[in-house]
Amino acid sequence: MGLVVQKYGGSSVADAEGIKRVARRIVDTKKGGHQVVVVVSAMGDTTDELIDLAEQVSPIPAGREFDMLLTAGERISMALLAMAIKNLGHEAQSFTGSQAGVITDSVHNKARIIDVTPGRIRTALDEGNIAIVAGFQGVSQDKKDITTLGRGGSDTTAVALAAALDAEVCEIYTDVDGVFTADPRVVKKARKMEWIAFEDMLELASSGSKVLLHRCVEYARRYNIPIHVRSSFSGLPGTWVSNEPPAGHRPLQRSMPGSRSSGSGSGSTAGSTQGDKSMEQAIISGVSHDTSEAKITVVGVPDKPGEAATIFRAIADAEINIDMVVQNVSAAATGLTDISFTLPKSEGHKAMEALTKAQAVIAFDSLRYDDQIGKISLVGAGMKTNPGVTATFFEALSNAGVNIELISTSEIRISVVTRVDDVKPAVQAVHSAFGLDSDSDEAVVYGGTGR
Amino acid sequence: MGLVVQKYGGSSVADAEGIKRVARRIVDTKKGGHQVVVVVSAMGDTTDELIDLAEQVSPIPAGREFDMLLTAGERISMALLAMAIKNLGHEAQSFTGSQAGVITDSVHNKARIIDVTPGRIRTALDEGNIAIVAGFQGVSQDKKDITTLGRGGSDTTAVALAAALDAEVCEIYTDVDGVFTADPRVVKKARKMEWIAFEDMLELASSGSKVLLHRCVEYARRYNIPIHVRSSFSGLPGTWVSNEPPAGHRPLQRSMPGSRSSGSGSGSTAGSTQGDKSMEQAIISGVSHDTSEAKITVVGVPDKPGEAATIFRAIADAEINIDMVVQNVSAAATGLTDISFTLPKSEGHKAMEALTKAQAVIAFDSLRYDDQIGKISLVGAGMKTNPGVTATFFEALSNAGVNIELISTSEIRISVVTRVDDVKPAVQAVHSAFGLDSDSDEAVVYGGTGR
Repeated sequence: MGLVVQKYGGSSVADAEGIKRVARRIVDTKKGGHQVVVVVSAMGDTTDELIDLAEQVSPIPAGREFDMLLTAGERISMALLAMAIKNLGHEAQSFTGSQAGVITDSVHNKARIIDVTPGRIRTALDEGNIAIVAGFQGVSQDKKDITTLGRGGSDTTAVALAAALDAEVCEIYTDVDGVFTADPRVVKKARKMEWIAFEDMLELASSGSKVLLHRCVEYARRYNIPIHVRSSFSGLPGTWVSNEPPAGHRPLQRSMPGSRSSGSGSGSTAGSTQGDKSMEQAIISGVSHDTSEAKITVVGVPDKPGEAATIFRAIADAEINIDMVVQNVSAAATGLTDISFTLPKSEGHKAMEALTKAQAVIAFDSLRYDDQIGKISLVGAGMKTNPGVTATFFEALSNAGVNIELISTSEIRISVVTRVDDVKPAVQAVHSAFGLDSDSDEAVVYGGTGR
Repeated sequence: MGLVVQKYGGSSVADAEGIKRVARRIVDTKKGGHQVVVVVSAMGDTTDELIDLAEQVSPIPAGREFDMLLTAGERISMALLAMAIKNLGHEAQSFTGSQAGVITDSVHNKARIIDVTPGRIRTALDEGNIAIVAGFQGVSQDKKDITTLGRGGSDTTAVALAAALDAEVCEIYTDVDGVFTADPRVVKKARKMEWIAFEDMLELASSGSKVLLHRCVEYARRYNIPIHVRSSFSGLPGTWVSNEPPAGHRPLQRSMPGSRSSGSGSGSTAGSTQGDKSMEQAIISGVSHDTSEAKITVVGVPDKPGEAATIFRAIADAEINIDMVVQNVSAAATGLTDISFTLPKSEGHKAMEALTKAQAVIAFDSLRYDDQIGKISLVGAGMKTNPGVTATFFEALSNAGVNIELISTSEIRISVVTRVDDVKPAVQAVHSAFGLDSDSDEAVVYGGTGR
């Protein structure tokens, strides 16, 4: 009987009823013979309410105190959850991040986990308790100050504890049924995946999928902790995220137009067992999109060594994370080139300021800021051995009348930037072109026909 | 330049405006050249809201988890207060009870402080910070669990820190102007005391005065920490509670009818400097009342050794604190006696249950429960050398037509139990009889005429 780490998000414990429902689910797991460690987020809007309060007393809330404030949220939910479990006749103890041994660096508001020393959790489990742990928080190694882990922190807490406790699985309970081939709000025919590989999930997470954050998946992959993303409302099996598909896994049935003309399927049927590894691994996991970014173009940069470096050093010094970077071949006549990059809209103002300051040194012509953009990404580990994928992707966009502004690729991902209004039709077109739609007539995989 | 500990209650930090007002007051103290440690309670109704939530998920909230839950309240207020201070351009750091070194026993919901090791507070002060500490909470010595100190816990935290840090004064900021000679809601002519001795304050606190709790005063007396109780709203000087009156202290002007007939004052005027110690110390500090208790009478107890002990063992085993105990002389004919005692109404049901169970062993006749009672107490260290006080007290009650049901005395206090409806006229009569009314024509103290 193994150890299970379960994580419940704020929407699952939004009120007393939610907490009681979650308590019953936890007790069911315990009754199933498992040791259970539960990581819980703050209730519903608690964190937002605390942020509001902070802004009322101080326009620029300070790091250390802001963390102290925010961690009150999980303290409330974890204590209530422990009480609700005890009320069902089972023993439970709650632990703050610090008590659970979540040791971090000292970067307030976005600390990183350095070590996990869950001695108290282990003791509590050995004594027959269900352990409830505050997500999103830890204690700094040097100063012993309370820290928070930033966005997606609770998921990361759960995976980190699962790794430190050598758990069988880390179950992430959320308000959706799992990971889908595209955002179901955009693509009605999007399908829930039964399984997705870590590396595909990493690409989806970094290109707009909100279900799991990159950081949490990265941690899970490093320590090889299978994640099971599932709904705390429906109780249905969700999506497994791991290195290898679970036993008995059958890849999604899909239709795949392998040629330029759409509609004509080719290849073998899914679920056949030809012993071909590429048959087991879906070529395309899904289509993600992201409309939270803006694009900055630095116009007329002298095309000589070091200029790009100076630009991105200015951005880095302002502590801004950028995403895609594209530089075109310079025009021979002028010796000038344009450099474009994307970044979160929320950082746009800061970046423009930093670049304007740097203009004296870099001597570019001008800056252009554009926040009416969207990014569409196609992700799948299978694509690295399937050159047809790129062609099909661009054809689908072209057929949908979508103009492409920037392109960036990794081994298992293609991303394009378009006008923001084109995002929805683009995602739908690509999802359909790769046979991911759920009511497809043909059940065909691309795998057998690749290369 | 000394160290000042300030404590702000929940009503002082009920909202963002309150927090900002308190922050300005703290900064003013700091600017005055003091090192400042601030103990803060949870905002306004936060604690009650958390208790509500707990009751929604579990009818009997568990000790350890309940403490974990409640301590979230101070975590919020202390972090916000630190932010507000930083926003005024001063450095501040907040500390949980655990971080501040408040070490307690393991009795959840009403832990007692065992030790205070404020190393981190000292460091923060030495680095120029204002230290903000969560009131009401600590960490248990053996299990390292979060504990709460129960009622009045924040005041006790403040005094304990003041003692551990060797502070000049512990300022308790509240929503009243200080300690009054009686509850101003009952006695319009009640006066604010400039100073009151620890021992008188202890008696007032244990007999119904709500301004300071017994426990906090006891702690302050043991470590000889002067307390200054004052309003966080008015900023006026409040009441000093200490061993000796502050330099320049003038006792309250008061009229004191020394004889049975009321109205005729006798004795010397207040403020005269005859070098008589009893002149400096007011005979009567004030009149307190308490309507939160009930009375239980055990009727027909066999008057033989050990019966009373058995009764109070049964009560003690149920962890019920009792207040007054009265046993009458037994009737010679029956050899039976009645034992009455008072206790908090909230414990009444539990006590009746415990006694009913004990009836088989103790063989009393019956139990009577009465919650329509009130207690009036007259407190003053001077009374132990002034035998006329008791007589004047009972005459005042008699003149007001108040019937007395129980009497209990200490060296510096007389308490009586009456019908609850008699409490208000009784307090007014006694307050007036001892010349405590503020607009008295005569300025006379009893001190010079005693014995």
